[in-house]
Amino acid sequence: MPLTLEQLNAASPAEALALLDGLYEHSPWIAEQALAQRPFRSLAHLKHALAQVVRTAELDAQLALIRAHPELAGKAMVANSLTAESTNEQNKAGLTQCTPEEFERIQQLNAAYNERFGFPFILAVRGPRGTGLPKQEIIDTFARRLDNHPEFELAEALRNIHRIAEIRLGDKFDYVPELGNLTWDAHEELARYSDPGFAEKGQLTVTYLTEAHRECAERIRFWMEASCGFDEVNIDAVGNVVGRYHGKEPTAKYLMTGSHYDTVRNGGKYDGRLGILVPMACVRELHRAGKRLPFGIEVVAFAEEEGQRYKATFLGSGALIGHFNPAWLDQKDADGITMRAAMHNAGLCIDDIATLQRDPAQYLGFIEVHIEQGPVLNELDLPLGVVTSINGGVRYLCEMIGTASHAGTTPMDRRRDAAVAVAELALYVEQRAAKDGDSVGTIGLLNVPSGSINVVPGRCLFSLDLRAPTDAQRDAMVTDVLDELARIAQRRGLRYTIEESMRAAAAPSAPALQRHWERAVDALGLPVFRMPSGAGHDAMKLHAIMPQAMLFVRGQNSGISHNPLESTTHNDMQLAVDAFTQVLHQLAQETQP
Amino acid sequence: MPLTLEQLNAASPAEALALLDGLYEHSPWIAEQALAQRPFRSLAHLKHALAQVVRTAELDAQLALIRAHPELAGKAMVANSLTAESTNEQNKAGLTQCTPEEFERIQQLNAAYNERFGFPFILAVRGPRGTGLPKQEIIDTFARRLDNHPEFELAEALRNIHRIAEIRLGDKFDYVPELGNLTWDAHEELARYSDPGFAEKGQLTVTYLTEAHRECAERIRFWMEASCGFDEVNIDAVGNVVGRYHGKEPTAKYLMTGSHYDTVRNGGKYDGRLGILVPMACVRELHRAGKRLPFGIEVVAFAEEEGQRYKATFLGSGALIGHFNPAWLDQKDADGITMRAAMHNAGLCIDDIATLQRDPAQYLGFIEVHIEQGPVLNELDLPLGVVTSINGGVRYLCEMIGTASHAGTTPMDRRRDAAVAVAELALYVEQRAAKDGDSVGTIGLLNVPSGSINVVPGRCLFSLDLRAPTDAQRDAMVTDVLDELARIAQRRGLRYTIEESMRAAAAPSAPALQRHWERAVDALGLPVFRMPSGAGHDAMKLHAIMPQAMLFVRGQNSGISHNPLESTTHNDMQLAVDAFTQVLHQLAQETQP
Repeated sequence: MPLTLEQLNAASPAEALALLDGLYEHSPWIAEQALAQRPFRSLAHLKHALAQVVRTAELDAQLALIRAHPELAGKAMVANSLTAESTNEQNKAGLTQCTPEEFERIQQLNAAYNERFGFPFILAVRGPRGTGLPKQEIIDTFARRLDNHPEFELAEALRNIHRIAEIRLGDKFDYVPELGNLTWDAHEELARYSDPGFAEKGQLTVTYLTEAHRECAERIRFWMEASCGFDEVNIDAVGNVVGRYHGKEPTAKYLMTGSHYDTVRNGGKYDGRLGILVPMACVRELHRAGKRLPFGIEVVAFAEEEGQRYKATFLGSGALIGHFNPAWLDQKDADGITMRAAMHNAGLCIDDIATLQRDPAQYLGFIEVHIEQGPVLNELDLPLGVVTSINGGVRYLCEMIGTASHAGTTPMDRRRDAAVAVAELALYVEQRAAKDGDSVGTIGLLNVPSGSINVVPGRCLFSLDLRAPTDAQRDAMVTDVLDELARIAQRRGLRYTIEESMRAAAAPSAPALQRHWERAVDALGLPVFRMPSGAGHDAMKLHAIMPQAMLFVRGQNSGISHNPLESTTHNDMQLAVDAFTQVLHQLAQETQP
Repeated sequence: MPLTLEQLNAASPAEALALLDGLYEHSPWIAEQALAQRPFRSLAHLKHALAQVVRTAELDAQLALIRAHPELAGKAMVANSLTAESTNEQNKAGLTQCTPEEFERIQQLNAAYNERFGFPFILAVRGPRGTGLPKQEIIDTFARRLDNHPEFELAEALRNIHRIAEIRLGDKFDYVPELGNLTWDAHEELARYSDPGFAEKGQLTVTYLTEAHRECAERIRFWMEASCGFDEVNIDAVGNVVGRYHGKEPTAKYLMTGSHYDTVRNGGKYDGRLGILVPMACVRELHRAGKRLPFGIEVVAFAEEEGQRYKATFLGSGALIGHFNPAWLDQKDADGITMRAAMHNAGLCIDDIATLQRDPAQYLGFIEVHIEQGPVLNELDLPLGVVTSINGGVRYLCEMIGTASHAGTTPMDRRRDAAVAVAELALYVEQRAAKDGDSVGTIGLLNVPSGSINVVPGRCLFSLDLRAPTDAQRDAMVTDVLDELARIAQRRGLRYTIEESMRAAAAPSAPALQRHWERAVDALGLPVFRMPSGAGHDAMKLHAIMPQAMLFVRGQNSGISHNPLESTTHNDMQLAVDAFTQVLHQLAQETQP
């Protein structure tokens, strides 16, 4: 008989502890402390309470928890389970069929890992879908994590322990995240399409209007029509796939949502696509239940956001606000194919682009789900975050110019060292951005061109990337940084050049829509965590004509993105679907005629 | 009738001022103040006094002095002299025969220069030899100086004004630096020999045992024998040209001196060679006067110091202390020619190398004259500097390793930014080296590999070059820097690699020999300025077996070296010859039997 939350909430402390037995390896103190938080409103609530106990524990207790796990042991794993997960999991991961070479490799990794970190390697081998990681991926992950910083790896070990506990909880409660699984699997299916040159290497690359790109569009259109029950589906003049699920009344307004299906080169499977597939799962459920809302839902799979094939970022969402730049049509890709030719070849009608512009009066607003693409939720053990604003940003390409001179013969007080001046600025940028709390400032490019070990740098090339949740906050930071740059150059007797290469306005969330996301997250039993979005998103474009607000979903692997290691779990996807559904319910109540 | 110092020293203030009229453009206050320092012991003393008045004047007075000069005016220069130097000078510089294009270029440069600095461009067009600069060099210098920092360019303008005054003083006193001219011209003649690939471009490159290198050796041998009257001259087994001028007695000890005649690629004309040609001029004078000293003089033109063709720096001076490494013989140059083959081809007898090792008992010690290769003397308006020590140095190649992450989505407190950590170290190195006063510390290589404007740097490659006049001082600095590196990495959660690529012991000057240089400089009426040598020199090798001390000669153009702009004047060379001669006299008195 599977466990229920009601049972757990009603049980005596000792009974409850027994019910949760075995979640965390030889560490009943975790469940014991978490149970003090009863009653739990949801499984997500319980998981969060458990993770919080570990988060706030002493380092010694955390280490003891990690060390309570046996080593990854290759052949021996059948008897002496890697993480004490079921033998079933081990079988799924294929770890019981190690070749002698694989076995030896794992032994080497174990030794190196233990020497470096002083605790055993822990990996939730059932993986983000709960069905088991391939053997090679386990070995690759092991090797990769060896390079982590010890502090980070300790946190990563604890996160894997939480994931193991989450999977065990699912087993205990017989909880299957059906829509999370559906959504997760749809990402896998979409990821089968990849551009030539990348597909062969198993890399995911889908750029504007390539064959893989058009296959993705077709696949999304097919799902919208055949699986999800959208009433109208079409591919528009720029390649966006637009599905409409009608409201109760033909005159009803629409809630627009969606994200992009193109990817960067060798990118991740979830960036953009999560924001298409999550609302599609919600519409599917509405359709299955035969349910109509007082508003329609328009899900747009944007054809282009990343600007990879052509320098035309946000082309898909931009077209909906009238921002399509006809000059783009003459841009050529790396093979000399113009955008015009690519669109023609894809059967798109360039003349119709202008008609794509939306009338805001017909919309409630725009909401977007997106994988975080950052480390915050992952580090805080939070599956969801509510976006307060898409940061405004400015980028500069700069050069500091001093005087190259002999490193031995030029006294310290007679130098015009371009690199040290940039170093001074780098530290200032770090402090200045940190002072705001939610601003970020980065010197990503840094190079002394033709530098020599024994030459005082005469030139230093560097970049500045400054972002903040509001334009005013960003501009105040920019002013301070540029003032400091001028002061440093003046004081050190240097000159510099600076060229603005990008400027994007901040897009603060519409308060009403943001509150809907907050209420949705709270309704799932999760703490409401508010955060700015450091990266740009399609919502930034729609922001120009309608209210918008976004929901972030935790990424695994420190939130890495634009990288094949980008990952998120079926459980977190389920929570995203649940939160989206909550927002739909809230809006339905609000817009009841 | 030319003016004499006696006249000037004896004149009334008003008379004296009249005698110095016209040295500095419309600025009698300079001579007036300088005259308070009478009596002058030498022309060098007088020039130094004049320069000191300008150095210590208010900025406004300095600017007024500069602005008292007319613009460089191309065609108009005959009537309206560039620096009010004689029309004769203008003619020598060819500025009276400007093409319309050159005239226009000069007008453009004048406008740009005036806009940037707010004062007219001033150049001592008679140049470092006093005979006039080529027109193209004037225009190139004008263009190059446009890029200078305003503070630096102001100082450069004042230095040119001092050089103009020096030339005018020479005219007034009918003073011709005969041995300075001789030495200056010998550098020009030697610079005619250059390796293929460089010679065609007018660049100076003389690497070990090339044809140009052997021609240089032959030319030096010829001069030693035919012009200077050395008693024995030979080219030894590694290609050093060794000239011996006997002492009074056959049993007399020798004073060894010299420097290297090879160059870096596209190098300067004076680096090394000045230390050969200055003592050659002194021996020439002894020979002409039929004078023998109580000790012999051994001038060695070292064949190899720069390690350009083969990785075997200080090969020439090293051979004299038994440091020739036989493994070098199998090294190949870029064309695959082994050092053994190159030596064989040059007719050198490899078997004799071991016999080159000197017996210190037969020597008084080693002294070396060298162009400073740094900005110190140039900035201080001092022609000569006495070296206290050749700095000991250590070099490291390092990599800081953090975590690359999204510049927008990674909050400031969750970054592991490798570049900011190196920035922190760079500022520490700067402060730490400055604290010692005469230590230097440099991060010459600095690069975020594959950096992106929107990615937090995950890696940063950098170098460390740390030098100090004593090994103990250097080692204390190294310890502090490496400790700080470890602290920064620890605090920021980063790791790093570090690899030592060079370590050279310091070579403090022998106090007695250093005092000889000091007394010589003082005897010339110049202030004694002591300084460490930041660069390595042949004296460093001889240091291992005998006392050594060096004299530095001011370099023009901020002391730039390893560069075609390396330059020094005939006047400064004359002072070097005079100082060397003084040392010979002092040693002669000391070693009188």
